[in-house]
Amino acid sequence: MFDADGPVLGIDPGVSRCGYGAVARGAGGSLAAQACGVIRTDPKGELPDRLAVLEGELARLVHELGPSALAVERVLFQANTSTAMSVGQASGLALAIAGWAGVPVFHYSPNEVKLAVTGDGRADKSQVQAMVARLLALDSPPRPADAADALGLAVCHLGSAGLRSAVADAGPEGGGLARAVAAAVARESSG
Amino acid sequence: MFDADGPVLGIDPGVSRCGYGAVARGAGGSLAAQACGVIRTDPKGELPDRLAVLEGELARLVHELGPSALAVERVLFQANTSTAMSVGQASGLALAIAGWAGVPVFHYSPNEVKLAVTGDGRADKSQVQAMVARLLALDSPPRPADAADALGLAVCHLGSAGLRSAVADAGPEGGGLARAVAAAVARESSG
Repeated sequence: MFDADGPVLGIDPGVSRCGYGAVARGAGGSLAAQACGVIRTDPKGELPDRLAVLEGELARLVHELGPSALAVERVLFQANTSTAMSVGQASGLALAIAGWAGVPVFHYSPNEVKLAVTGDGRADKSQVQAMVARLLALDSPPRPADAADALGLAVCHLGSAGLRSAVADAGPEGGGLARAVAAAVARESSG
Repeated sequence: MFDADGPVLGIDPGVSRCGYGAVARGAGGSLAAQACGVIRTDPKGELPDRLAVLEGELARLVHELGPSALAVERVLFQANTSTAMSVGQASGLALAIAGWAGVPVFHYSPNEVKLAVTGDGRADKSQVQAMVARLLALDSPPRPADAADALGLAVCHLGSAGLRSAVADAGPEGGGLARAVAAAVARESSG
């Protein structure tokens, strides 16, 4: 199911609401959303049944979209144990599916997405959503918010890939860019 | 894959080491271990590949053993975020498999297992392992420790089922047993 020319599939993992968004880069370098939405599971259902539903939907998405990469939100260490457990359950399913399908997985923190999308690691949610809409030439910010977050993850990966390539091209001087990214990540870890 | 007469499959979830142990109740009420061990994944491997291996092994176990129930260790809120995330990833896979297979899942905390196996919610690990060996008529405590923990979870479920039935049979006076269990669980939550 791995397709080197496939879109990047962003995943904002959660058991109740799992956002997804697929973004492809066109021939001219422009970005286009190929799919986005939220997988919801019934909060009144039994957890094993909910996870089975989530796994089935995620597997279907990977099968249908044939992504070249998964961009999954990184959980911050500030999150509480209960949140981490639940996000872990959802992300574990997404990662296992990627493992079976041979699709490489990359993790990005919320601040890395903000930095990649808006150029400012401290941008607020509405700024990120507006920029995602602009970068993807959408008439309005994607809804719901989880879908927009997932598109942001995919945009971040495509931007980071470009950035990594720019850093490599620039040789030793490119280190400045890498340091800027590292500094932004460090800011986030401490705050 | 659900079998009402099948063994109880205990699972001590983890990505690097996931303990499992299947226990069945014989006609005379005696308990017998049907399988136990540890699924290990390569710490040097990529996480998606490791989770895919773990999922495959867990699915094989459920398929081969046809359990009547899964008894999964409950993560305590004292655990750190990183541990909770990792345990969440492993348990998410086990629960989704149970969901697909129609096998009901029950969660027990370490202190509930100690109470069920030794009668003392504060027993140490070696006491629990010795009692698991005695209850299952094994010559020596099962090794490694993760496998013993998983057998303890299965024994706990079989014991709890008996306890629940005893409480129901005893009518109003049975409340004393229920209160003792509730008190033991409360002790653990606070300590």
